[in-house]
Amino acid sequence: METNHGHGHLVIIGGHEDRTHDKAVLQRFVELAGGPEKKIVVISAASGVAEKMWAIYDQAFADLGVARRAHLRIESREDANADTVLRELADAGGIFMTGGDQKRLMANIGGTAFDRELHAAYLKRGVCIGGTSAGASAMSGHMLATGHAGTTPEKGAVNLGAGLGLVRGVVIDQHFSERHRLSRLLTVVAQNPYLQGAGIDEDTALVIERGVGIEVIGQGAVTIVDGRTMHSNMASAASGECPRLVDVRLHLLPTGTRYALSGPGEDGDVPAALRDFINTVTKRIDYHENH
Amino acid sequence: METNHGHGHLVIIGGHEDRTHDKAVLQRFVELAGGPEKKIVVISAASGVAEKMWAIYDQAFADLGVARRAHLRIESREDANADTVLRELADAGGIFMTGGDQKRLMANIGGTAFDRELHAAYLKRGVCIGGTSAGASAMSGHMLATGHAGTTPEKGAVNLGAGLGLVRGVVIDQHFSERHRLSRLLTVVAQNPYLQGAGIDEDTALVIERGVGIEVIGQGAVTIVDGRTMHSNMASAASGECPRLVDVRLHLLPTGTRYALSGPGEDGDVPAALRDFINTVTKRIDYHENH
Repeated sequence: METNHGHGHLVIIGGHEDRTHDKAVLQRFVELAGGPEKKIVVISAASGVAEKMWAIYDQAFADLGVARRAHLRIESREDANADTVLRELADAGGIFMTGGDQKRLMANIGGTAFDRELHAAYLKRGVCIGGTSAGASAMSGHMLATGHAGTTPEKGAVNLGAGLGLVRGVVIDQHFSERHRLSRLLTVVAQNPYLQGAGIDEDTALVIERGVGIEVIGQGAVTIVDGRTMHSNMASAASGECPRLVDVRLHLLPTGTRYALSGPGEDGDVPAALRDFINTVTKRIDYHENH
Repeated sequence: METNHGHGHLVIIGGHEDRTHDKAVLQRFVELAGGPEKKIVVISAASGVAEKMWAIYDQAFADLGVARRAHLRIESREDANADTVLRELADAGGIFMTGGDQKRLMANIGGTAFDRELHAAYLKRGVCIGGTSAGASAMSGHMLATGHAGTTPEKGAVNLGAGLGLVRGVVIDQHFSERHRLSRLLTVVAQNPYLQGAGIDEDTALVIERGVGIEVIGQGAVTIVDGRTMHSNMASAASGECPRLVDVRLHLLPTGTRYALSGPGEDGDVPAALRDFINTVTKRIDYHENH
């Protein structure tokens, strides 16, 4: 229970964050974890090349001055329930989930003691949770599990699974602009109109400060698609068909964007069209509400 | 003045329409031109390989049963003012503008007698005007002239020019989903928020019946972006910077979509969010209002 940096942060990274040069996104993660004197633990359970992933982040966090670095080797659900693994979380300032496959990650940690302790770290101790690529997708309650990114949206082209639920009401996609994934995110909201889609570019992060606000950092932008006011023929469209979508709201938030719920931020008051998104992702929820 | 098919149609094609197999988009163009017994004239002035273009469309329209086909060779503004050229328009049922470069097309025909006669054909005689790729872009009053399609919108990345103004209040982009051009269309509306953007996929057309309604035909979809309610920092953003855009409205209209202004169409009443777009593009305007 040593670390408590206040509200808890999520650093949701769109993949390919710089790890060898300016490391701006990882540097912010370290700052939000309490600075280089705090311990950072790395979860590579999404990856099929876990040791290689660890080597990359071990070096990157060492370069950022972090002395206490730990690799949590989770290759099974037994590992994710092991006391030795759980003890590593207890004094962590930051917990970082690497890329790989979000389904592999969730298969190994979903519903385990590790999952419960991860939430406790974020919700009770204000630990900073970072995730990149698959590690980013896994943070939402409804997780984009599989889906090809065609040139236009396509009914049935995406499937959701159960993610960690550190953030709710939103589906996260990554490598967003680089892999031209707007179509598949539109498919997600067309199929699930009460969820908002958040597409995060490479070397870019959506930073969420619980109960406080959001910020976009890094090189690119975060694209939000909101289908709640949409008119659509999704229900009657055939599988594989491109649906008709009228009145989707789209927000493009480039790096540097900051919005705080209380009072005007650097960019002024939160626009009405974004308020619900920010309320939703910064909401104080506890583990049991999630599951 | 022989042809009058009623209201006049625009067939605005996103490029790469099929010319050798089903030719569904070109077939519809021929139908809207009054059928194969009518004369079709082809304008290749956008292209650097005009004779090659003519050979392709000459064959395609022949395959569709059109007996009277004419190639209007316009390589200069003098050509576009020549009586021999203008006479070819007088009894045309359909006028088709090929791809190439919309700036080349406008440099040769903008403000010429040909331009004036083209409008008269559409507005007074109800002739069907088709255009693909560059020929599609040139149809709007504000024409997308140059612009690279980056992964995210970018201040200053697009430049508009003066197009034909057969349709107003809208900027047309083509090869839309295939070349991932949403970012540049967002740049257009961010810079020009009173214009709506219409991005047309390949082998797909937005068909506009003047005073009546719209239809999407072909293989793909038409994407409309409406920035009129948007909040943006475009004015203060630096050149090359990705702007912040909040509350852009996006509409995705796949093939088969039909909306009529008067009474419910096949897809029911026009949704409120689309009504203004449809009103705008189907508006009855005359040549002199345009220029």
